[in-house]
Amino acid sequence: FSQLVYEDDYGVNNINKTSILDYPRFSHRGILLDTSRHYLPLKVILANLEVMAMNKFNVFHWHIVDDSSFPFLSRTFPNLSQQGAYHPYTHVYTPVDVKSVIEFARMRGIRVIAEFDTPGHTQSWGKGQTDLLTPCYSGSSPSGTFGPVNPILNSTYDFMTSFFKEISSVFADAYIHLGGDEVDFSCWKSNPDIQKFMEQQGFGQDYSKLESYYIQRLLDIVSSTKKGYMVWQEVFDNEVKLKGDTQIHVWKMNPQYQDEMARVTAAGFHTLLSSPWYLNRISYGQDWQDIYRVDPQSFNGTPEQKKLVIGGEACLWGEYVDATNLTPRLWPRASAVAERLWSDENVKDIGSAYSRLEKHRCHMVRRGIPAEPLFVGHCGHEYSGL
Amino acid sequence: FSQLVYEDDYGVNNINKTSILDYPRFSHRGILLDTSRHYLPLKVILANLEVMAMNKFNVFHWHIVDDSSFPFLSRTFPNLSQQGAYHPYTHVYTPVDVKSVIEFARMRGIRVIAEFDTPGHTQSWGKGQTDLLTPCYSGSSPSGTFGPVNPILNSTYDFMTSFFKEISSVFADAYIHLGGDEVDFSCWKSNPDIQKFMEQQGFGQDYSKLESYYIQRLLDIVSSTKKGYMVWQEVFDNEVKLKGDTQIHVWKMNPQYQDEMARVTAAGFHTLLSSPWYLNRISYGQDWQDIYRVDPQSFNGTPEQKKLVIGGEACLWGEYVDATNLTPRLWPRASAVAERLWSDENVKDIGSAYSRLEKHRCHMVRRGIPAEPLFVGHCGHEYSGL
Repeated sequence: FSQLVYEDDYGVNNINKTSILDYPRFSHRGILLDTSRHYLPLKVILANLEVMAMNKFNVFHWHIVDDSSFPFLSRTFPNLSQQGAYHPYTHVYTPVDVKSVIEFARMRGIRVIAEFDTPGHTQSWGKGQTDLLTPCYSGSSPSGTFGPVNPILNSTYDFMTSFFKEISSVFADAYIHLGGDEVDFSCWKSNPDIQKFMEQQGFGQDYSKLESYYIQRLLDIVSSTKKGYMVWQEVFDNEVKLKGDTQIHVWKMNPQYQDEMARVTAAGFHTLLSSPWYLNRISYGQDWQDIYRVDPQSFNGTPEQKKLVIGGEACLWGEYVDATNLTPRLWPRASAVAERLWSDENVKDIGSAYSRLEKHRCHMVRRGIPAEPLFVGHCGHEYSGL
Repeated sequence: FSQLVYEDDYGVNNINKTSILDYPRFSHRGILLDTSRHYLPLKVILANLEVMAMNKFNVFHWHIVDDSSFPFLSRTFPNLSQQGAYHPYTHVYTPVDVKSVIEFARMRGIRVIAEFDTPGHTQSWGKGQTDLLTPCYSGSSPSGTFGPVNPILNSTYDFMTSFFKEISSVFADAYIHLGGDEVDFSCWKSNPDIQKFMEQQGFGQDYSKLESYYIQRLLDIVSSTKKGYMVWQEVFDNEVKLKGDTQIHVWKMNPQYQDEMARVTAAGFHTLLSSPWYLNRISYGQDWQDIYRVDPQSFNGTPEQKKLVIGGEACLWGEYVDATNLTPRLWPRASAVAERLWSDENVKDIGSAYSRLEKHRCHMVRRGIPAEPLFVGHCGHEYSGL
């Protein structure tokens, strides 16, 4: 609605009587924020949800924990954030915080999909939960460092059962993101107990089979909570047996993401695209144009395959991003993704997109959102919210 | 002084009794901001001066006008901003604004050096000053577009005399930056009057001689105001006759800036470096390290030549920068330049610089300055000034 309001030469806001027929091309239009590599204060997350709504995004993918820190305060395992957060009181999301995020999002038509990524990306989990991670060995003795979740202990699966029971009730959405990306095998390889287990299971030296073994058991656990799940593409690539409603999240640039989209949909799975939309990656110039040119359905496949593409997500990983620079780094670059996911595939002229985007960006700036400029120029009302 | 204060585990601010012996390696430690490609509200400039002081910068190079807009309100030629600013009232710097900037800077030990770049980069000047720019021709008739300042008219030099008389009184600093970079000859070449003048002067087809002719006359005008001047390297490259106290500002990456520093100092001129410190250029990752590794005196030259290096400037050109993203884009990357220009040349270990810079950045964040993170981690007091 706010896009219809315009300011005339006298500074008066006007709106024309009109009727609108409009609907989105894709149903999943998401933004990923990473609150582990840097902690994002609650109000930054809420402010971003407001901007997402202005840009017709409808999924907040909350990559809430990772190696660096565990800011999620679990009622069942409070020690995870007590030990694993950057600070146990100032750098955590309490149950009330999480509820606020979900409700604030819901009021704006935005789903909150939490990601609890395992078995890799879990260093911070190990601080508050003994025996969860694999002890790495240096020669014949433990080195004191830890690797991915230990997949050979029953205690691991007991923990995951309790943990995901809590998660599935805290996060109301029908889907949960289980991660499953970038598992480093070197620690598993160094551990004699893991080696023995590999032998017993007949996995040979193929550690991706061990990874699949873990993920398979995890998926069974999460399925029993009646949630659907999303996973990063490796889980599919490693031929884990997946429920039919699993959504495969394509993120790699190599091999070509178009080929991965073709493979995933040929196997009959729903998929969503992020590879070309890692907005944490920056370069000098008008990179929104490449972002805008992407089409999630442009791969070799049948019309039925194309229909399995549910949308995409712009990802803002947190290595170099926190509250100080999140908004100008994400907006209006994410607005280019927003239009791609909403509008008809024929809407792709760069010149007219520039005009719309420039105007839309000044709209955001006028509302006090520090969305960065696309290029040389000015807004009638500049940002002054220093 | 504020760098000596630290917060203990109880949140109490402490300072140890100490005595300090410290002094800068270079006397010219500058930041360039560009208020033409995007207008920067006064308070953004003042806030940045505050951060500069925290980082021991002592020169604010104000690239105040350029092709895109002319926000400087001249008392002598008010039409320049009336016609050439993005908006004649909201996007200008009034005499009072300019005074505030100068005084705010002075109180913090910072000089304000204004740049009025000619004969190129002057499109916005032409809107409010008839006959100042060269009319370009298409075939035998004027095309309606304009090129650089018209160097063949007496009216041009009359204008410059009055204009720089005002400028030299408004900006108190002993130096003024006269620009002189990137002059595009195509418009001059198209204009029959210019061609005739070239012939009369015996310049042949060497338009850099015409450029030098203009700059020479401009320098004579400015010299009569008793100001020293800084110029971009092209003015030296084109063999313009320069006063001995002229400072040559090296900005190009090609040819190698080290060779240019050697040539300029071999000719006996003072010089300052910006080429590797164009902080508007961004890339993914910890680019502060390359910024930090630069040494302005590392070129082939005698000790006498090295002494002619007065320092450097971090430049933040405005194509992609305005009030929404200026602070996190500039800081703490400019802090790496600050340390290079202040500390001894032996202070160059990247690891220990990282620790200092990370702490210093949290210091800035605590003071409400949205300086972006260097890498994964956290501050005790995160930014919350949204």
